[in-house]
Amino acid sequence: MEYRIEVHTNGDVHTIMAASGTNLLDVLKDMGILLYTPCGGKGTCGKCSVRVDSDIAGPSEEERRLLGVKAGKGFRLACRLNIDSDMRVYVDDLREQASIITAGTRKRVVLDPLVRKRFVELSPPSLEDQRPDLERVLAVAGMSGTDNGTAIMDLAGRGVGTRLLKGLPDVLRRSGYRITLVEAGNNLISVEAEDTTPALYGTALDIGTTTVAAYLYDLSSGELLNVRSMMNPQRKFGADVISRIDYAKKSQQAADEMRKIIAEGINDLIKQLADEAGIDQGDIYAAVFSGNTTMLHFLAGFDASGIAVSPFIPVTCRAVHMSAAELGITVNDNGYCLILPCVSAYIGADTVSAVIASGMHDSSGISLLVDIGTNGEIVLGGRDGLMACSTAAGPAFEGANIRFGMGGVTGAVDSFTLPGFKYTVIGGTAAKGICGSGTVDAIAALLDAGAIDETGALAENSGAAGLPYEIRSRFTETDGMKSFVLVPAQETVGDEPITITQKDIREIQNAKAAVAAGIETLISTAGISYGDIEKVYLAGGFGSTIHIQSAARIGLLPRQLADRVEAIGNASGSGASECLLSRKVQVIAEEIAGRIRYIELSASRIFTEKYVENMLFG
Amino acid sequence: MEYRIEVHTNGDVHTIMAASGTNLLDVLKDMGILLYTPCGGKGTCGKCSVRVDSDIAGPSEEERRLLGVKAGKGFRLACRLNIDSDMRVYVDDLREQASIITAGTRKRVVLDPLVRKRFVELSPPSLEDQRPDLERVLAVAGMSGTDNGTAIMDLAGRGVGTRLLKGLPDVLRRSGYRITLVEAGNNLISVEAEDTTPALYGTALDIGTTTVAAYLYDLSSGELLNVRSMMNPQRKFGADVISRIDYAKKSQQAADEMRKIIAEGINDLIKQLADEAGIDQGDIYAAVFSGNTTMLHFLAGFDASGIAVSPFIPVTCRAVHMSAAELGITVNDNGYCLILPCVSAYIGADTVSAVIASGMHDSSGISLLVDIGTNGEIVLGGRDGLMACSTAAGPAFEGANIRFGMGGVTGAVDSFTLPGFKYTVIGGTAAKGICGSGTVDAIAALLDAGAIDETGALAENSGAAGLPYEIRSRFTETDGMKSFVLVPAQETVGDEPITITQKDIREIQNAKAAVAAGIETLISTAGISYGDIEKVYLAGGFGSTIHIQSAARIGLLPRQLADRVEAIGNASGSGASECLLSRKVQVIAEEIAGRIRYIELSASRIFTEKYVENMLFG
Repeated sequence: MEYRIEVHTNGDVHTIMAASGTNLLDVLKDMGILLYTPCGGKGTCGKCSVRVDSDIAGPSEEERRLLGVKAGKGFRLACRLNIDSDMRVYVDDLREQASIITAGTRKRVVLDPLVRKRFVELSPPSLEDQRPDLERVLAVAGMSGTDNGTAIMDLAGRGVGTRLLKGLPDVLRRSGYRITLVEAGNNLISVEAEDTTPALYGTALDIGTTTVAAYLYDLSSGELLNVRSMMNPQRKFGADVISRIDYAKKSQQAADEMRKIIAEGINDLIKQLADEAGIDQGDIYAAVFSGNTTMLHFLAGFDASGIAVSPFIPVTCRAVHMSAAELGITVNDNGYCLILPCVSAYIGADTVSAVIASGMHDSSGISLLVDIGTNGEIVLGGRDGLMACSTAAGPAFEGANIRFGMGGVTGAVDSFTLPGFKYTVIGGTAAKGICGSGTVDAIAALLDAGAIDETGALAENSGAAGLPYEIRSRFTETDGMKSFVLVPAQETVGDEPITITQKDIREIQNAKAAVAAGIETLISTAGISYGDIEKVYLAGGFGSTIHIQSAARIGLLPRQLADRVEAIGNASGSGASECLLSRKVQVIAEEIAGRIRYIELSASRIFTEKYVENMLFG
Repeated sequence: MEYRIEVHTNGDVHTIMAASGTNLLDVLKDMGILLYTPCGGKGTCGKCSVRVDSDIAGPSEEERRLLGVKAGKGFRLACRLNIDSDMRVYVDDLREQASIITAGTRKRVVLDPLVRKRFVELSPPSLEDQRPDLERVLAVAGMSGTDNGTAIMDLAGRGVGTRLLKGLPDVLRRSGYRITLVEAGNNLISVEAEDTTPALYGTALDIGTTTVAAYLYDLSSGELLNVRSMMNPQRKFGADVISRIDYAKKSQQAADEMRKIIAEGINDLIKQLADEAGIDQGDIYAAVFSGNTTMLHFLAGFDASGIAVSPFIPVTCRAVHMSAAELGITVNDNGYCLILPCVSAYIGADTVSAVIASGMHDSSGISLLVDIGTNGEIVLGGRDGLMACSTAAGPAFEGANIRFGMGGVTGAVDSFTLPGFKYTVIGGTAAKGICGSGTVDAIAALLDAGAIDETGALAENSGAAGLPYEIRSRFTETDGMKSFVLVPAQETVGDEPITITQKDIREIQNAKAAVAAGIETLISTAGISYGDIEKVYLAGGFGSTIHIQSAARIGLLPRQLADRVEAIGNASGSGASECLLSRKVQVIAEEIAGRIRYIELSASRIFTEKYVENMLFG
């Protein structure tokens, strides 16, 4: 038995026939419609709500609890709804342009890009000079002697891609032996007819668990031509790396799907970058990828399952070099793709890139780098040594497991102060939810106001006599939990108040304790004190929007260091860009990846102690 | 309008619908039925005859001439027949096992094969040892230090194929970290679970214009397990390299077709090798390819068009290393394919391999190597230097452009003596035609008998009074040309006499003059005399079946050297086998390819003079 499902999204209507009993989330996934499912579709996070405008059975008790007031307005959780009749479904679009930080703080690098072009004129062959086409080219390229002794290697060895050989005779003869060589390091990767040297572009990408940012550069001038970002389309398989690995390891097909969806997303993004800049995608000859270890495993098509379980083993942390054709990325087919090196399962190329962007690896003083994305990575050190750890801190600051949490996109409350209940909303719209910086602000303000005590407990309404009325009047209940109204119902999109619940506070408490304990573990392991740290770099979108005083107030960052904090934006993207623009930096990236000492926190007694200490609000 | 074409071949009946006006040769080609078309289907060689058992219009005058007596027996040239009615067609099978020389003269080589297996046991990972899977493997393989500084390269650089990384976690965990490494030189090409070291095989192939030979070796023992050969399926596109290049350069589709058909043929051959030997194709990890420059270009998918026109420029002569997956060869996907190095457009890897098989490169004396296949390649020299030339001598000795010519397959007259008209037929069947050794014997015998004079003219029947009756009675006419009956009609399969025509004699005269002039040009260029040559090696199938005295009699080989000739069989296949079994020999192959001095005969005045001198029969 099949039913007709009519899906309304963004003004578009799609219709599909679905077999009885099929899960609605799966149906939407098959249609390419992305829902935010931090729990991976297990029915526990309550984020995949859709409005169903049909006569179907009501939600279960638990579903009702997860949906809150939405339950009475026709909303259902897609992951809990199995199809047993025709239905009309309204879905919120997840593809809205996220306000992801892409600008970064780019240092000046000496331009020496990963790929270069060189125009050369060859002497045509004759009966007196019967050198094969390739020898003629390599001699001019300075890549060979006169012997035939150097092999052509695709499998291995410095050399010449066999792909370029296929079209070589045509390029040579069509151009009258006037050609442009495209080289990547010591490798000849392509040969083009005539002088095409001005058209040479490259792209640097940062593949985050939640967002993907892409930068397009003119490699002749080093100029940044365009920047774009998108939500990571893999989000529909789960908000965090573990749920995605769990999904991918279900079957080879699932693993292929995971790889394909990110490649397709990247290809869309690259097309957009190129179209908007008015350049030909075929003139993009280099793509550098940064990101966390899991995302890069998915991109390369490696089995990431070892990352999800103790002792947390990736397939490889080395830099991976592939042709664009092999990686399935639609730049020039002969294009050179570089996946930057990682350090461990949970210290990825994004951290290596962030170190590069900060410059801390080159500083004689000691710096601290904190990158709070979906995970929290922390690096401590300088020229004389670097150590790093990773804490499972992240998703709460990105809105996961927070009752009204959302990413830093349009509609999110991103700042909050007391007294006066002042708040700002990204995009200036009515409030839809609250993002990390707003949540941290709210908790800091409520701590200052005495509405939250040192243990993280919301004051009892009845026992809150010492609080001013404007505070007292905001205590309420959400889903049966004690909560505090940040934005009243009449000022929100959903006509329900945006609250912070006791559970939300616990989530943030856990997350901030993990980050703070990570920082303290590194400091303790290094045998230094806060006073020895000259600089604190905050990387990532959350790090750029967070208010330092609030972060220090809740104990996410050490109070002692609040005066030396610098936000460095999407440092992963900046570092990847530097690697694209400079072979020297690329080499440094590999050095840094090899130099960073990884501290495994799950095996650390120090961390456990510090974590418990940091659970309190100071 | 479509017609029903019923094709009978080898007892099989295939039926296909073909559009009105379609060429029958194309229809048969599409059905995968191979016809021998030395002229490339241009309607001039008369070799693609098929019997049509339907009521169709008779053959044209020219077709009738090309078909001879067959014209009256319902035969038609497939390339000249356009479909305009239903028809039943009888086709001779070309796929019969050719008696190609595959045995070769294999020297003993010290076994050090291109790929090796090693069983190792790794320590499993722990929180104290979180090295990535690859680092764990490389450390045991002795391929890395402890840093992450070495990149993984598929595009270039010594290293590790990215393909093997995809399955690595599964192999490690499934086997409990007991694995078999598969290495090719310094490259790790595969990792298998458990100890699979005994199952390691390799194949060496010689891709000739006319025939393909394949050898299967156990790389653990060096034992030859199986040998198979087939006609080169590209023959349907033309007998010689020029017609095939002309075909391939018509369009990308044609070029792809040319590559695909040889890859498929090779894959069939490898399957047969493996099935008969009772081994798994997936355990074949190395494939070494020898062959002429054009055939190897087709195999690699390179554009061979520069080879066909002066100044005769190949894409590359270097050894090409590819993974089996990339080359499209169905051994293990990670298998290592090596295409051996060539010297020039017309001195291919087959000649380099033949030199290796002969051992002449390592001899203090001077040797001469003559390989008469579809072309004739000649190498002169020894340890102190090697030079080579190529002559357009070949196809006549393989039956092309000879009225009753055929390859050395079942039904071919392969020896002939006078007096008594004694002849032998390959396979002991009734005679179908005559192969190279038979033709050379016949001309030698007729020269001795005085039936052919010094200029190559067949004696006039009327003026042959001085000849014995048994000779005189054999003069006749074939297709309006003077000819001589070698096998009477009643002893042949086709019920028509097998003759040698005046034109056949001219073809052989041209061919032998080219080979002899090539030999003399090298000797003259080297400034030596016949007396300085210690050894003459005859390579190839024709070289193995030819009767030395007859060859010397017609002036194909120098009479002075007849006492020091040694046939070395399919020397190209032997040399390729040595490269498979010994990395040292593989290195030597590259050295030899670089050392051989190529003498271009089309620019040589000496050659032209010698060619004219050698046109006469001495």
